Amino acid sequence: MIKVVVDLYGGDFSPEETVKGALLALERDNDLEVVLCGDKEKTKSLLGEKASDSRIEILDAPGVITNDDDPVGAVRFKKDSSLIAGIDYLSANDDAKGFVSTGSSGAVLSAAVLLSKRIRGVNRPALAPILPTVIDEKKVILIDCGVNTEPKANNLLQFAQMGVGYAKLNGVQNPKVGLLSNGAEDKKGNTLTKEAFSLLKESNLNFVGNIEAREILSGDIDVLVSDGFSGNIALKACEGTALSMFSLIKDGIMKGGIRAKIGYLLLKPVLKKIKHTMDYNEYGGAVLVGLEKVIVKAHGSSKANAVANAILQVKSLAEKNLPAYIAQEIQ
Amino acid sequence: MIKVVVDLYGGDFSPEETVKGALLALERDNDLEVVLCGDKEKTKSLLGEKASDSRIEILDAPGVITNDDDPVGAVRFKKDSSLIAGIDYLSANDDAKGFVSTGSSGAVLSAAVLLSKRIRGVNRPALAPILPTVIDEKKVILIDCGVNTEPKANNLLQFAQMGVGYAKLNGVQNPKVGLLSNGAEDKKGNTLTKEAFSLLKESNLNFVGNIEAREILSGDIDVLVSDGFSGNIALKACEGTALSMFSLIKDGIMKGGIRAKIGYLLLKPVLKKIKHTMDYNEYGGAVLVGLEKVIVKAHGSSKANAVANAILQVKSLAEKNLPAYIAQEIQ
Repeated sequence: MIKVVVDLYGGDFSPEETVKGALLALERDNDLEVVLCGDKEKTKSLLGEKASDSRIEILDAPGVITNDDDPVGAVRFKKDSSLIAGIDYLSANDDAKGFVSTGSSGAVLSAAVLLSKRIRGVNRPALAPILPTVIDEKKVILIDCGVNTEPKANNLLQFAQMGVGYAKLNGVQNPKVGLLSNGAEDKKGNTLTKEAFSLLKESNLNFVGNIEAREILSGDIDVLVSDGFSGNIALKACEGTALSMFSLIKDGIMKGGIRAKIGYLLLKPVLKKIKHTMDYNEYGGAVLVGLEKVIVKAHGSSKANAVANAILQVKSLAEKNLPAYIAQEIQ
Repeated sequence: MIKVVVDLYGGDFSPEETVKGALLALERDNDLEVVLCGDKEKTKSLLGEKASDSRIEILDAPGVITNDDDPVGAVRFKKDSSLIAGIDYLSANDDAKGFVSTGSSGAVLSAAVLLSKRIRGVNRPALAPILPTVIDEKKVILIDCGVNTEPKANNLLQFAQMGVGYAKLNGVQNPKVGLLSNGAEDKKGNTLTKEAFSLLKESNLNFVGNIEAREILSGDIDVLVSDGFSGNIALKACEGTALSMFSLIKDGIMKGGIRAKIGYLLLKPVLKKIKHTMDYNEYGGAVLVGLEKVIVKAHGSSKANAVANAILQVKSLAEKNLPAYIAQEIQ
């Protein structure tokens, strides 16, 4: 049995979809237990007859942290919130192996960084979502995507090491590491990336140099290192462009008459597969690496299926022992 | 007559496609003259019988600057290169109104910034490409996209002002200005964007706040302000994702059997229109704003049609007097 703590609040469709997602995950995996963090009575009523399931525990934490809350203030003062109570539970209970939230990124990351224990030697935890690439089944880990807006060059080196540990867990041997920059040439970059470039080059990592944002989805690299500000921009620009293109295709089909509609029906399997590939909700959420337990920030817009995926992702990462893979790389 | 200076070297398909592009532009616009910068004899032979066209002047500059050259070094020492000789010609001749290059971004920007005259009051010129959005005919100006990797907050304010001038030239009244950040909330950002946020908020611009990279193509804003490093990443992530999606669609059609192929044929007009919309080569190149003359950096991979578009774009911006629009906004 693996026990995963689930924050029921803070997402766009929580707590209803979060509760549904937890039930879905329990249905899919008999070896899973969940701790649901939210208002006890409301959660019970959402669970209905499932409330008595022995694999479900409810942690009474009625407080909600929203995007409007100051993340650090919330961590200090909203002790009764589902997020903070959940992270505290995770830290205090050895048998709780991981945590999922669809809540405010800022608050989830602040809570995780401030309240949960780091792997020995890790200076700064980092958010590491996995992105699809144009090469079937090949993925790229983008690290950091939002925790550290102003890291130092040695932090970037450590992000690379942690990314490599994560990629190895995913079965990649000798992962190729790239540095996100404003051009592919060695001399490109800002002060931070130029310093990080030197450190990465001197390291024993399989460092392939600067990578332009145009190449993120090319499948050429396994780990793309970045400060959290630029990484966040790269991630969201990719995501936004994919969504924009689907919206343009949909719009074109709507306005394209019967011809376009028949064409769409025939091409639907292809477009659906691409939508599936580009939709990184399908892969669960972004992992916060560098901590002793597995913490995943799922998309705020996650519905039941995405929540279930994220919970099962946490379970799988905990089973495979992600923290051990990370610790291995941190010297 | 408007005279535009064209750098024949440095692009992926230059000088052949650059020369073809210049001829195409001359064909399309009788009110255009060009100065072609390259090796005199070779250029003549590429022009063939057109070499005697009275609207074509050749500036003998056989040197080539490549991506491997150090940009600043090249500007100082490669005086005989098509790029440097071309920019020098532009600065020295009042009747030359603009300049186009498909060459190395770093070198083009360095040459333009170091060798050409700024508009009074402009501290730092900035690269301002125009991106498509999901709303028909609506565009967004992304400024800066690569000149200033580490600007100050007051530079960002000036980028906003210049972007507004450019948007007004494009017919946008009271352009909406956003600040590229790692979240939409007011408090998001790094030290630079937080300072810039305050300056923009205090300014008389129509500032709408922080914009996530997910919203770049949403059509909600007219001018998106950024430092050159993050702007470059945002631009190229959008571009790379669009290209990746077309590559996935193509791949899916190839592997999808007869059904997918018929579907594609029927849906082709829709997909072609989207490809056209997303292909920012179609709009010419990125304008370097803040200078007394119009300088455009066209994509390195530009073929004849893209080169022609960029040349006509320079002509149009010169006719409308872009520098006057910029000067108007700089107080």
